[in-house]
Amino acid sequence: MDFELNEQQRAFSDTACQFARDKLSPNAAQWDEEKIFPKAVLKEAGELGFLSLYAPEKQGGLGLSRLDASIVFEQLARGCTSTTAFMTIHNMVTWMVASFASDAAKASYCPYLMSGEWLGSYCLTEPNAGSDAASITTSAEKNGDYYLLNGSKTFISGAGETDVLLVMARTSDDGANGISALIVPAQTMGISFGRKEPKMGWNSQPTRAITFENVMVPSNHILGEEGQGFKFAMRGLDGGRINIASCSIGTAQQALEQATLYMQERTQFGRELAQFQGLQFKLADMATELVAARQLVRYAACKLDSQDPQATAYCAMAKRFATDVGFRVCDQALQLYGGYGYIKEYPLERYFRDVRVHQILEGTNEIMRVIIARHLLSDAGSML
Amino acid sequence: MDFELNEQQRAFSDTACQFARDKLSPNAAQWDEEKIFPKAVLKEAGELGFLSLYAPEKQGGLGLSRLDASIVFEQLARGCTSTTAFMTIHNMVTWMVASFASDAAKASYCPYLMSGEWLGSYCLTEPNAGSDAASITTSAEKNGDYYLLNGSKTFISGAGETDVLLVMARTSDDGANGISALIVPAQTMGISFGRKEPKMGWNSQPTRAITFENVMVPSNHILGEEGQGFKFAMRGLDGGRINIASCSIGTAQQALEQATLYMQERTQFGRELAQFQGLQFKLADMATELVAARQLVRYAACKLDSQDPQATAYCAMAKRFATDVGFRVCDQALQLYGGYGYIKEYPLERYFRDVRVHQILEGTNEIMRVIIARHLLSDAGSML
Amino acid sequence: MDFELNEQQRAFSDTACQFARDKLSPNAAQWDEEKIFPKAVLKEAGELGFLSLYAPEKQGGLGLSRLDASIVFEQLARGCTSTTAFMTIHNMVTWMVASFASDAAKASYCPYLMSGEWLGSYCLTEPNAGSDAASITTSAEKNGDYYLLNGSKTFISGAGETDVLLVMARTSDDGANGISALIVPAQTMGISFGRKEPKMGWNSQPTRAITFENVMVPSNHILGEEGQGFKFAMRGLDGGRINIASCSIGTAQQALEQATLYMQERTQFGRELAQFQGLQFKLADMATELVAARQLVRYAACKLDSQDPQATAYCAMAKRFATDVGFRVCDQALQLYGGYGYIKEYPLERYFRDVRVHQILEGTNEIMRVIIARHLLSDAGSML
Amino acid sequence: MDFELNEQQRAFSDTACQFARDKLSPNAAQWDEEKIFPKAVLKEAGELGFLSLYAPEKQGGLGLSRLDASIVFEQLARGCTSTTAFMTIHNMVTWMVASFASDAAKASYCPYLMSGEWLGSYCLTEPNAGSDAASITTSAEKNGDYYLLNGSKTFISGAGETDVLLVMARTSDDGANGISALIVPAQTMGISFGRKEPKMGWNSQPTRAITFENVMVPSNHILGEEGQGFKFAMRGLDGGRINIASCSIGTAQQALEQATLYMQERTQFGRELAQFQGLQFKLADMATELVAARQLVRYAACKLDSQDPQATAYCAMAKRFATDVGFRVCDQALQLYGGYGYIKEYPLERYFRDVRVHQILEGTNEIMRVIIARHLLSDAGSML
Repeated sequence: MDFELNEQQRAFSDTACQFARDKLSPNAAQWDEEKIFPKAVLKEAGELGFLSLYAPEKQGGLGLSRLDASIVFEQLARGCTSTTAFMTIHNMVTWMVASFASDAAKASYCPYLMSGEWLGSYCLTEPNAGSDAASITTSAEKNGDYYLLNGSKTFISGAGETDVLLVMARTSDDGANGISALIVPAQTMGISFGRKEPKMGWNSQPTRAITFENVMVPSNHILGEEGQGFKFAMRGLDGGRINIASCSIGTAQQALEQATLYMQERTQFGRELAQFQGLQFKLADMATELVAARQLVRYAACKLDSQDPQATAYCAMAKRFATDVGFRVCDQALQLYGGYGYIKEYPLERYFRDVRVHQILEGTNEIMRVIIARHLLSDAGSML
Repeated sequence: MDFELNEQQRAFSDTACQFARDKLSPNAAQWDEEKIFPKAVLKEAGELGFLSLYAPEKQGGLGLSRLDASIVFEQLARGCTSTTAFMTIHNMVTWMVASFASDAAKASYCPYLMSGEWLGSYCLTEPNAGSDAASITTSAEKNGDYYLLNGSKTFISGAGETDVLLVMARTSDDGANGISALIVPAQTMGISFGRKEPKMGWNSQPTRAITFENVMVPSNHILGEEGQGFKFAMRGLDGGRINIASCSIGTAQQALEQATLYMQERTQFGRELAQFQGLQFKLADMATELVAARQLVRYAACKLDSQDPQATAYCAMAKRFATDVGFRVCDQALQLYGGYGYIKEYPLERYFRDVRVHQILEGTNEIMRVIIARHLLSDAGSML
Repeated sequence: MDFELNEQQRAFSDTACQFARDKLSPNAAQWDEEKIFPKAVLKEAGELGFLSLYAPEKQGGLGLSRLDASIVFEQLARGCTSTTAFMTIHNMVTWMVASFASDAAKASYCPYLMSGEWLGSYCLTEPNAGSDAASITTSAEKNGDYYLLNGSKTFISGAGETDVLLVMARTSDDGANGISALIVPAQTMGISFGRKEPKMGWNSQPTRAITFENVMVPSNHILGEEGQGFKFAMRGLDGGRINIASCSIGTAQQALEQATLYMQERTQFGRELAQFQGLQFKLADMATELVAARQLVRYAACKLDSQDPQATAYCAMAKRFATDVGFRVCDQALQLYGGYGYIKEYPLERYFRDVRVHQILEGTNEIMRVIIARHLLSDAGSML
Repeated sequence: MDFELNEQQRAFSDTACQFARDKLSPNAAQWDEEKIFPKAVLKEAGELGFLSLYAPEKQGGLGLSRLDASIVFEQLARGCTSTTAFMTIHNMVTWMVASFASDAAKASYCPYLMSGEWLGSYCLTEPNAGSDAASITTSAEKNGDYYLLNGSKTFISGAGETDVLLVMARTSDDGANGISALIVPAQTMGISFGRKEPKMGWNSQPTRAITFENVMVPSNHILGEEGQGFKFAMRGLDGGRINIASCSIGTAQQALEQATLYMQERTQFGRELAQFQGLQFKLADMATELVAARQLVRYAACKLDSQDPQATAYCAMAKRFATDVGFRVCDQALQLYGGYGYIKEYPLERYFRDVRVHQILEGTNEIMRVIIARHLLSDAGSML
């Protein structure tokens, strides 16, 4: 067993940490306040490889493992949770296209997606199919060389400002097996975007609904074959859960460190906060849970990398635990700041708003419990 | 023992509930988004007596008990947490002036404060004296018929838009016994206000720092005598804790009811959310804790009304428990809404942001634990 | 609203407190260790009225309210949780017989049950019907002047040492409406008792299974009419939940007070434990939750006394919350004692073992959540 | 990074698992009930190397890493928590003697300690020095070729039935630097043992106080040099925390698996418990926390093995988290069993009683928080 980062991981981690410090952190408050989607900085991230972390090297990706990517995302999230979370989504799009698209589509899209010249949105959720992904109704009807896309998606990150939509749509009635994944250029005729959804956090990425009305998608823009979309989506989800969990961990680490410093600076009743044992105990619990959560995320990432048959259960555990712990740590750090935690002059309230959605996204933490319990109660369950 | 509301309480509760529904609830989202301080609606509240609930009848107040006021604030908070919280602060100012001011000052200020024509700010907190109120340094030096006020306050609700400041200032070096309370007209020369502090919630009330530079305050604007200010502040705090706890309870009740309805409307995997036992258990725990918290708040309010020597400990318990439970219930309600809980189209995220500060204000919940423990470990402690 | 004990309640409370101190507390450790069922002391309790607290005065009971009884049980539990818990069961039997039996049966049984000369067992649970009371299969077949009782019961408190069994048995196939309640003298032919069940706590009351083989029960030993048994059982359950919750509260209060004293005596690192803020915070939280739980229990008891249509939901809340808090407080008190909490020289570990079963009995706390949620999701739910 | 067991670890794990299943599990209930110290089985454990897991190979130990030992203890604990916990103590004694004793003492003691022919007790705790180890007062006065040992120890595992006592005693007044470690044959004149302490669990190992009155200990029975004892003790403690944490993990894993099976067997309301989502969610949380705790323990063990300067903080985290989680999992498993969890026919209540003390021993979990916080607030703290 070996729990330490290797040299390459340390190098990636350092680069990401520096990028977070130099490019994300100084702007994160403004992006949040003014709801700015920082395309230029995302392009810089692309240049460093942060937009194609685990896309196959053959297509120009870095070909890293999920564990490596987790380490990178954790560091990036220290600078801006919301922007890093968008990067994880873009990475998922890039990875899917680079892995499963036709050669033609790979050639057309990969270079731009990887460099960040084009940004991608992942279009799975529908108004009536939140946690229940298999029930989507957006349809893609084959018509000669084209699919005709009709329906609507909701809560789509980046929508309205990204260039490429990866759309899960129904090509047949066959339940989960009737779903296909299509690459759809965002400016295609028949696509309309809803208003920019005001939301509590994640404000550096726009969220919109999308409506498709007889949108023509070239038939070679399908990933793999018809009916494989749900399978790709599910594979993507395991990794997506690691990613979002990593964003929670990184944000919480940042919050913990700042709270630790604050406790050493702030004086009340003639003593540093750091000297109050009641607060020390809080700090100790925050750190302990955070370290445990990080290890669980990395463990699950390794299971995914080694294609362990139990990987889905481990990823669900990691997502549930790390996003809950991540929120709790940010919440407690805010509390340690007292009134200063509540005002926008300090970043604590932003961390708190941003990580909160991680308990909901990529499958709510209730859905995670369903997945974990189902596995435990299956034949393979006792092997955890 | 009798746990039911009496007729008068039910009447006040109904009036407050209707005011919340008609005047607060429809506007709360806009006030939050646009950071509007709703003076006109506050004046309407004043007309119904909501700005002088427990001020003595002799001065024109309703002369209600703290318990009665708690019942009213709970209902009002269902409409807008932030605005109701401001009303609790204004009520504290009104009560202090109406109870402890000179006759002249009572006559000058009470009618306007009670009607809501003038609004009041309570100025206790200083940058270096958050939880440690006794360490304030703002000074009031007697100079003939005037006090000369110098120093600064921070996190003052309403500051910059209110008319009357109730300022705690040091009139002598004698620690807590050297603090006095002064009524200061907000437009007096020498007062300057900081920028409107951007904050996570409580956006319908502006928060600003205030600087006093040689501000002349008529000497008959002191409450009681020199050195009594801290005592008044402490008496106010017990009630203030009941008030803020009541705001948490009311908001949480609103969140619980909406989540309950949502569970009956929203369908996933072919079933109403209400049919999933995992979610039912959450709902049951939310309701149970909320009912327990409400009873504890009312119990503490009664202790305060009967001037029980242990009232301070009970108020601290009520504040700690009800604001923690209030936040937890809002947090869980948001979670039950899933993605819809996170967007501003629904009020859940506002409840969540607004009640969060109640765990910090009026003495952080850590300070509450200090108060409770000190009492438990005192001679009287075993009587709880 | 009035949260204080009235004079009569205070008197009962004092008597119970003294009985606990003098008669229960000094023996509780031995009863636990040697598994002694303290019949003589129970008889003394009967003489003070503690075995017929809420049985109708007409039959010789004290005719107290459920609230009054809760106050008494809370005090008794401070002396011995397990013995008090048995008294609550005996009270339930007494109340049922005194309320619903035929005049003849009342006359035969009430005097002896109320004085404690005879002790009673409540026989509801069956091996395959733990939480699912309506599915019981023990049958009572009418045969002339007798019922012929066949079947078996499990986890029966007092069984093998009590005199009167109150047995829920099936008189028809009509589900819950086919269940009847019968008074069965324990020495009747055909009754056999299982071995004394070794268990973690509640050791001052024997627990045994009972088998009925063609046991002849006089037909006038039925309570009310055939088919009313389940209704009686359900009415009994609401009260039973208040009772057991009260036992948790009393035990926890005892644990809290002892831990408070211990913190003031025990020195570590040159300071009293009482001076460590980390431990003070624990103590504060224990007290706060306990006070909240007590108020919730009393609130629910009042709802039951006033036959509020929502009483069942409130009783379920009280049982769930108070037994969870009761256990948590005992667990934390044990922890504050350190190693001394774990050894039998001190009572902490006994409190801990005894209250643990309250989270299981009288409907598990999971069943409580089902009841609460069902109510919340019903039409009446929003009125809580 | 690599989270999987290697071949050797898997082999040790399997052997330990089988030993637990064959030798410990079938007897654990009886050992608990009858308070039997299973010397014969401990000797069998010694033959397999389980009593000298990390003692140096040169002295005949297995020379395993702390991580390896953790894996073994986890498996053993599945069979009997209490007996395995004793083995961890014995291993500590063996390791200390084999590592730090004089050659003569090594030669005299190691073969017998490693084979289990002799059993060892670790004598650190004193009545007034529970968590505050540096304040011990038992004295060892040098007198020619002997130390004269005077004082008393408390809560000593195995005392009265073990052969070798490893005693921490004060050889000078120099605080922690005045403490030395001595090997003391248990039958030496002047040693007397207190009564066998009745306790809630850990019943397969006797606990007694020990009094030393002018006990003569050969001066070559000191470990290392005078004044090194506290340092050895502290090094031992880090490992001891990993060990006890491992015992919690193993027990919890056993409880989880049994609860999982029980949920699939037990039917209520016409359905398997496994089908109730409320219970599924509980099960999922138990498993998630347990997996996280196991990873944290292994991570800390690796830090200890690599002599990481932060190892003490990680070990404290692992001990705090794993013993809390271990207890919670056992508590919840008991709850899932309902009434059957509370009776001694099933092992759940034993797991619950046994693991409870792990939150207290080897430094209470409050002391762990002190250690963690101190580290976080030190210069090195941000590197966690």
